[in-house]
Amino acid sequence: MLRVGIIGVGTVGTSVVNILKDNAAVISARAGVDIVVKSGVVKNLNKDRGLDIKLTDNVDDVLNDSEIDIVVELMGGVEEAFEVVKRALKSGKAVVTANKALLAYHRYELQEIAKDIAFEYEASVAGGIPIINALRDGLSANHIESIMGILNGTCNYMMTKMTNDGVAYDVVLKEAQELGYAEADPTFDVGGYDAAHKLLILASIAYGIDAKPEDILIEGIQNISQDDISFAKEFGYVIKLLGIAKKDKNEVELRVHACLIKKEKMIAKIDGVMNGISVVGDKVGETLYYGAGAGGDATASAVVANIIDIARSGKSKPMLGFDRPMEAGLVLKPIQNIESKYYLRINVSDKIGVLAKITKIFEDNSISIEAILQRQSSKDSANLLISTHMAVERDIQALISSLEKLEFVNSKPVMIRIV
Amino acid sequence: MLRVGIIGVGTVGTSVVNILKDNAAVISARAGVDIVVKSGVVKNLNKDRGLDIKLTDNVDDVLNDSEIDIVVELMGGVEEAFEVVKRALKSGKAVVTANKALLAYHRYELQEIAKDIAFEYEASVAGGIPIINALRDGLSANHIESIMGILNGTCNYMMTKMTNDGVAYDVVLKEAQELGYAEADPTFDVGGYDAAHKLLILASIAYGIDAKPEDILIEGIQNISQDDISFAKEFGYVIKLLGIAKKDKNEVELRVHACLIKKEKMIAKIDGVMNGISVVGDKVGETLYYGAGAGGDATASAVVANIIDIARSGKSKPMLGFDRPMEAGLVLKPIQNIESKYYLRINVSDKIGVLAKITKIFEDNSISIEAILQRQSSKDSANLLISTHMAVERDIQALISSLEKLEFVNSKPVMIRIV
Repeated sequence: MLRVGIIGVGTVGTSVVNILKDNAAVISARAGVDIVVKSGVVKNLNKDRGLDIKLTDNVDDVLNDSEIDIVVELMGGVEEAFEVVKRALKSGKAVVTANKALLAYHRYELQEIAKDIAFEYEASVAGGIPIINALRDGLSANHIESIMGILNGTCNYMMTKMTNDGVAYDVVLKEAQELGYAEADPTFDVGGYDAAHKLLILASIAYGIDAKPEDILIEGIQNISQDDISFAKEFGYVIKLLGIAKKDKNEVELRVHACLIKKEKMIAKIDGVMNGISVVGDKVGETLYYGAGAGGDATASAVVANIIDIARSGKSKPMLGFDRPMEAGLVLKPIQNIESKYYLRINVSDKIGVLAKITKIFEDNSISIEAILQRQSSKDSANLLISTHMAVERDIQALISSLEKLEFVNSKPVMIRIV
Repeated sequence: MLRVGIIGVGTVGTSVVNILKDNAAVISARAGVDIVVKSGVVKNLNKDRGLDIKLTDNVDDVLNDSEIDIVVELMGGVEEAFEVVKRALKSGKAVVTANKALLAYHRYELQEIAKDIAFEYEASVAGGIPIINALRDGLSANHIESIMGILNGTCNYMMTKMTNDGVAYDVVLKEAQELGYAEADPTFDVGGYDAAHKLLILASIAYGIDAKPEDILIEGIQNISQDDISFAKEFGYVIKLLGIAKKDKNEVELRVHACLIKKEKMIAKIDGVMNGISVVGDKVGETLYYGAGAGGDATASAVVANIIDIARSGKSKPMLGFDRPMEAGLVLKPIQNIESKYYLRINVSDKIGVLAKITKIFEDNSISIEAILQRQSSKDSANLLISTHMAVERDIQALISSLEKLEFVNSKPVMIRIV
């Protein structure tokens, strides 16, 4: 029998307990051993969770319990979780976590401690989708050329609604909050930070990149308007928030931002709260993995799969993770050197000669225009919607700086990258 | 060092040799050992394959070579491959195969022989997509409710072309043959047999169903016409060939046939030669896996991933496969008991009262109509395009028998199931 202690019995923790109970017969058969939850740690012991496991409000009751083989860390947060997981590993307990923030900041330190003890984290990226398993084992014959993921269900829900229903960002955000898809303070999701945490985990597995969220390009969806969506429709794109990891010789681009994506691409077809990750290997070509990226049962499905893995392979199976990335010797590409096609929305006073002046500034910055759409935005102003050919981030930032200084440009231009 | 012998060095075999060479550095690092191809068996030694491995036309040179650790079986066919693989396993060599026909007929006998020796077959289903890995390990916390797969790229290419370009079946088939997507005799693909072989492998892993192709419902796409496609468009469907495995209490439905699929479903969005498999778990909900289902490099990507697995886990790692399915105690549901919604195309003489008589026969067979579309097909005949509510296969077959006996029904009605 394998005994599990759960630290943080909220939505996901409750699902873990229920899955291990509901599917006990098949799980025992698959794991080769019975798996039972011995105890769970909660903050508030008075809340009824309808669970028949022993609950405590003291982490020591799990961490000091020599009978517990596997600690499932679902408390969230960074530093406190880090201390708890370190203590668990050091006392010889295997750890399964769904905590992406913990890994975004401390994965390499944890890997160092977990050299001879199992440490699994499938649930930390894209909930129920077994993407880490697929990447690490399924595509092991390939150089991974790129990973592009819809890694945040909140953003994808909002962008889908804005596209399908033609409503404004603020309206959709309010709706997402009412449905429980977005938090009261939605910044962590709509600002791209949640997706960035997940991207960093994937980038470590594939490319061995030891970066923190602060080191990479992270932008959100807060500036997307119906003007952008109508440009996208006009030119055959959809707009989504993507996390992108891309290898270019010995450099790796890591970035999270809204993207214009050609609507024929598989990743453009993933709608609503669902997640999906496109992984391109040099031999296999494009593969894509789709499913629920959040929710108690979907996330717990991955947590329990990891528990079964540990039961099958033993607590001391060396982790194939951050210490042995799929590629070695790669470095993070500086943000300013990232190359992309770009889209710009420039709100201008509707005067004669403005378009000529604007296009001249593009030329001065060595940026070649692919398409232009002009839309009246008020009685005396217009939106210029412009897409470019391939350009370098540095040049685009310079272009935007030049543009926003012009007296007939009414506000800072909005930029969306095209993939 | 691990030494590999390849039996059958055609397109996939050549790709295996090239991947092991091209990506040798990362593969050695991931596997923890160098992997080299020692020799390959071909029929025709005179053909130049541009490979620098030792070639032979005698399987004994591989099977009796005590230095060879892993036999990669890519010869295709059933009985001869079965003998070769048995000999390899019995002489203590691990086996990796991409041969779906071999497994469709002999997987349980092979599993019996491979009790203590690695036997891997990821490439046998959906080429480069790591679906077996995902199903067996990634979704191990779930009861698998259903598996629906686009498992044949030829059929999917043809249905996509018929839908997008509005051309007839025969025209698209000819084009597919010219492009090398379909064989001169296309029956194995367009008749659904190739997809059925793959479905049987998935059904064994998920449900432990020991069935042969002859035991299950297999239909192809040969009867699909532009009338059917226009009905599909009218009512928001696309038509694709699917392999379906579905659990219903202690029974499992296994079937391969053309399907009308609501166009919003992810699996309906997979176009061209690509493959995709939707797997629904009771906890994780729907997940989907997409990629190239054929082609040398994509298939070889899965073969090499299996070789790396064996390098990592050892030649004697117990196979988690057909002897330990994810569910036990399930039986194949008789074809006649399968329930579905149905679509029928009935070509009738265009006379007064025909529609009333036809709908009366539906009623007599307890089959409830959902939608009807009538299309003139010639001066004095029309196609009735009818979809039903849920019905039982037995009743639909009886209905079709009744219909084709009517003097104003001009040919055997074409039936497509709706999923």
